[in-house]
Amino acid sequence: VPVPSARQRIVNSAARLFLSRSFQAVGVDELCRAADVRKGSFYHYFPSKSDLAKAVIDANLQALENRWRTAPAGDGLTHLRWMVDQLAVIQVEFETKFGRVVGCPFGNLAVELATADDPVRVHVASAFTTIEAQLAVAVERAVAEGELRTGTDPHQMAHALLAQFQGLTLLAKVCATPADRIGPALGAFIDQQVHSGSEADDA
Amino acid sequence: VPVPSARQRIVNSAARLFLSRSFQAVGVDELCRAADVRKGSFYHYFPSKSDLAKAVIDANLQALENRWRTAPAGDGLTHLRWMVDQLAVIQVEFETKFGRVVGCPFGNLAVELATADDPVRVHVASAFTTIEAQLAVAVERAVAEGELRTGTDPHQMAHALLAQFQGLTLLAKVCATPADRIGPALGAFIDQQVHSGSEADDA
Repeated sequence: VPVPSARQRIVNSAARLFLSRSFQAVGVDELCRAADVRKGSFYHYFPSKSDLAKAVIDANLQALENRWRTAPAGDGLTHLRWMVDQLAVIQVEFETKFGRVVGCPFGNLAVELATADDPVRVHVASAFTTIEAQLAVAVERAVAEGELRTGTDPHQMAHALLAQFQGLTLLAKVCATPADRIGPALGAFIDQQVHSGSEADDA
Repeated sequence: VPVPSARQRIVNSAARLFLSRSFQAVGVDELCRAADVRKGSFYHYFPSKSDLAKAVIDANLQALENRWRTAPAGDGLTHLRWMVDQLAVIQVEFETKFGRVVGCPFGNLAVELATADDPVRVHVASAFTTIEAQLAVAVERAVAEGELRTGTDPHQMAHALLAQFQGLTLLAKVCATPADRIGPALGAFIDQQVHSGSEADDA
């Protein structure tokens, strides 16, 4: 097992501490202790905490894309369901790791920093655009395969799905409800769009 | 016009400043200046910033309930659509006031403080429970009047609607998209649940 670099240790510690508390609640001193690096080293890699927030966003996006690349073969609707379910699985894994629902790494930084730090806002927005575009590809395939309602707009549905995940996760975090309810609720959301042979398509 | 009390001025300033930036980004000194009160007076009313966060949540909940009480007469589905649309209208009003989408006053504090301040988390959770219960009453009436799909669970739909609003608002805040897209997206969400006479109810 390769030893993580100082930069990698800082990003890993920050990802964990920002999730378990919040961006503002965690200071540079604490980050340096957790990553076992000196302050000079920290500022060498991350001239500001905002730079670190961006690196944490990049690391989380990379992890999500790596996970999504392991999708089992299947039709478009199955693939879409699986992608969305992975978002919920990540929340269950966080719940196991942190002992509570801690929220989405992107959504948390989005809400906390969008009004306070514009470069970070732009960075999270870009991550969301990437995530939404990948969901839209899966929706588009499911539509092409006739599995979703006629007239379903892939970008609109991808946006609504990402919004539903963000909202369900936000409510689970603040209401302290179990993370394993997120997946079934997202599944029910997709069910609403599933083409049923007997339905009337007024589209 | 009655002059607002010192306590009221502090709550009003905090509601505005927390929305336009964030809870952590605004300090007590700035709050005192904005409300034109002395620090002693501030701590008299709010021994901690967490107490102030709770008062801001209460004020926002009161404002929402007052607004919802002005609903025009109409059937259950019309009432539900109107209630949900008001959530979106508030975002448009904030956008006009602040020059950008600033997010939901409840959602923002929920995400920022749920992991960092448990008493505030409990307080926001309670506000969400109240909001969701009021939405569920409207859903229940629309179901009873046969306007929503057979088998629609009022609490589940109210939860999904609140989640959709939170998620759409979060994405609009971070992606800097216009607030007036939130209302139509929520309308489309409700449309999915609308009972169409010609559809097959497999429920």
